[in-house]
Amino acid sequence: MQDKLMLMIPGPTPVPERVLLAMAKHPIGHRSGDFSKIIGELNEDLKWLHQTKNEVLTLCASGTGAMEAGIINFLSKGDRVLVGNNGKFGERWAILSRAFGLEVEEISAEWGKQLDPEDFRAKLEEDTEKKIKAVIITHSETSTGVLNDLETINKHVKAHGEALIIVDAVTSLGAVNVPIDEWGLDVVGSGSQKGYMIPPGLGFVAVSDKAWEAYKTATLPKFYLDLAPYKKANAKNSSPFTPPINLMYALKASLEMMKEEGLQNIFDRHKRLTHICREGVKALGLPLYASDEIAALAITAVIPDKHDAEQIRSIMRKKYDIALAGGQDHLSGKIFRMGHLGFVSERDVLSALGALKETLAQLA
Amino acid sequence: MQDKLMLMIPGPTPVPERVLLAMAKHPIGHRSGDFSKIIGELNEDLKWLHQTKNEVLTLCASGTGAMEAGIINFLSKGDRVLVGNNGKFGERWAILSRAFGLEVEEISAEWGKQLDPEDFRAKLEEDTEKKIKAVIITHSETSTGVLNDLETINKHVKAHGEALIIVDAVTSLGAVNVPIDEWGLDVVGSGSQKGYMIPPGLGFVAVSDKAWEAYKTATLPKFYLDLAPYKKANAKNSSPFTPPINLMYALKASLEMMKEEGLQNIFDRHKRLTHICREGVKALGLPLYASDEIAALAITAVIPDKHDAEQIRSIMRKKYDIALAGGQDHLSGKIFRMGHLGFVSERDVLSALGALKETLAQLA
Repeated sequence: MQDKLMLMIPGPTPVPERVLLAMAKHPIGHRSGDFSKIIGELNEDLKWLHQTKNEVLTLCASGTGAMEAGIINFLSKGDRVLVGNNGKFGERWAILSRAFGLEVEEISAEWGKQLDPEDFRAKLEEDTEKKIKAVIITHSETSTGVLNDLETINKHVKAHGEALIIVDAVTSLGAVNVPIDEWGLDVVGSGSQKGYMIPPGLGFVAVSDKAWEAYKTATLPKFYLDLAPYKKANAKNSSPFTPPINLMYALKASLEMMKEEGLQNIFDRHKRLTHICREGVKALGLPLYASDEIAALAITAVIPDKHDAEQIRSIMRKKYDIALAGGQDHLSGKIFRMGHLGFVSERDVLSALGALKETLAQLA
Repeated sequence: MQDKLMLMIPGPTPVPERVLLAMAKHPIGHRSGDFSKIIGELNEDLKWLHQTKNEVLTLCASGTGAMEAGIINFLSKGDRVLVGNNGKFGERWAILSRAFGLEVEEISAEWGKQLDPEDFRAKLEEDTEKKIKAVIITHSETSTGVLNDLETINKHVKAHGEALIIVDAVTSLGAVNVPIDEWGLDVVGSGSQKGYMIPPGLGFVAVSDKAWEAYKTATLPKFYLDLAPYKKANAKNSSPFTPPINLMYALKASLEMMKEEGLQNIFDRHKRLTHICREGVKALGLPLYASDEIAALAITAVIPDKHDAEQIRSIMRKKYDIALAGGQDHLSGKIFRMGHLGFVSERDVLSALGALKETLAQLA
């Protein structure tokens, strides 16, 4: 049915009407006092969402652009980095790091399993010369629905003392607790079309004092993604380049909604939605790709069992106006993924489960 | 008066209601067939606007991000480049090029004057060893309201044979004729909040076959702004990373409006608006910063004569709800700039001139 689509993919996520209408306002000048006031308010609200006292920098870029900024600003060619790889996004940060001449050692786990914190402990303890300059981790692996044990891995990084921890929190921020200052995370990247409940186009990077220290000696070339001008502009409630004004209107509206709901309530809701989704899928007799203990709170990856994943997605889309995500790379056709991230209520998950039940009945 | 602001700055430019409402639609999945169809249509319309048969690549970035992509994809560290510098943006491309280790030779002119094509001819003719790999030119210098003689400079680049011509057309594309294929321009960068009539957040790069040849041996590190994955995805009506979906809805609406108006009519309108603005300012007794023959069609820079530029801007803003731009860097307080780019009609320019007349009367 036209214009009736319900998004249950890991991003873009559903956008509240209040946010869509805020975005449709006419832009004002980004160098005006009125817009400076908006930037100032956004900066405060972003610190609240990120649970940090440090700046959160807003870029006109996708989550990948934000992660690139989070990596290239603090490292130099030839620097040794450990990259956790247990899915499509972990793999991407390894490829990106190699593109910039970093010496990458991948710490891998099978897709659908968690990274083993012990692997990180071993590599970091071995490194008595402190050659490892950063550990790059995907917190919530969107391709498989696995939440990595960031807290434990980070403890091993802290014990190492030298390495920065750089976190892809693209589908965890605003869904699960990522207490940046409490844990001492150095760099945390995220993107707008996820827990933020706004359309794609904004990337965010939270940066610790330790990372800014590393910035001083980092020599990878950069300009558009050089974070120092963003920091400098941030302090004056400004931006180094023209910011995506209307997406920032949207961000303002969504952060207001998030503050009204409260951080703990948001995390609880995502936990509840994940539980309902997983139990519902199990009740329909379909196996889950990741086990309960390591499940991401953004998406649930489902093995379609004797059915064709793409056929299920097609019926869900055409008959029930529900968009599910497919599997990526070698998981294409082998899993489908149900998103429950951002502006999603229990009703949405129940609708999707109801439609999935009908879909399976038609395929039986 | 609240929500009554009229933008007459060089960007963001006014956005038509049709575009704002298109942008406020709920996002759909960027990997869906429906969105692929939109990308396909956009790609065709962008070729029309750029007067090229080659791909025009759409990035989630500001105009500066688009220009960075247009430079770093086709060059290697140590490559010699000529950069035209007669304003804030020419200066920026020199700084950017140096940040990436290019060997920059600036060809400068005083702010408010045109770059001299003869300077380029001389440097290019001298270079018998063909060491110059690119000539980087700002077509319409937004900081001063000067249109550089791209056509002539490009002829000298073509006579050289080896160098690429890389053009910042951020405030010329969609305002003045930039016939990319006819002139044989290699790389042309632009941004959405200008002639495109949509909010900021999209950058565009048109790339020639010759530039793609240069890409093959270019070694500057890149990932998010690596244009090859964009080209590959483009061919499949897709994108390498999550695109700013709602801004692309906006782009679709604005390109439809531009096609309805017609390219020549758009160029004629900008010429007419520039003429009206300049004659109107002269009639009010204020000197123009750039002379008529070299005037940009996007903005008109005005010397406030015995008045204070910032005071004029303040009254225009507070009393008449018209936002004008100030001067940048050493021109701060010394000029103000009236934008007439994009979704601007004769009525708007007449309104601004009327308000300017009243403002001057109050200051007399």
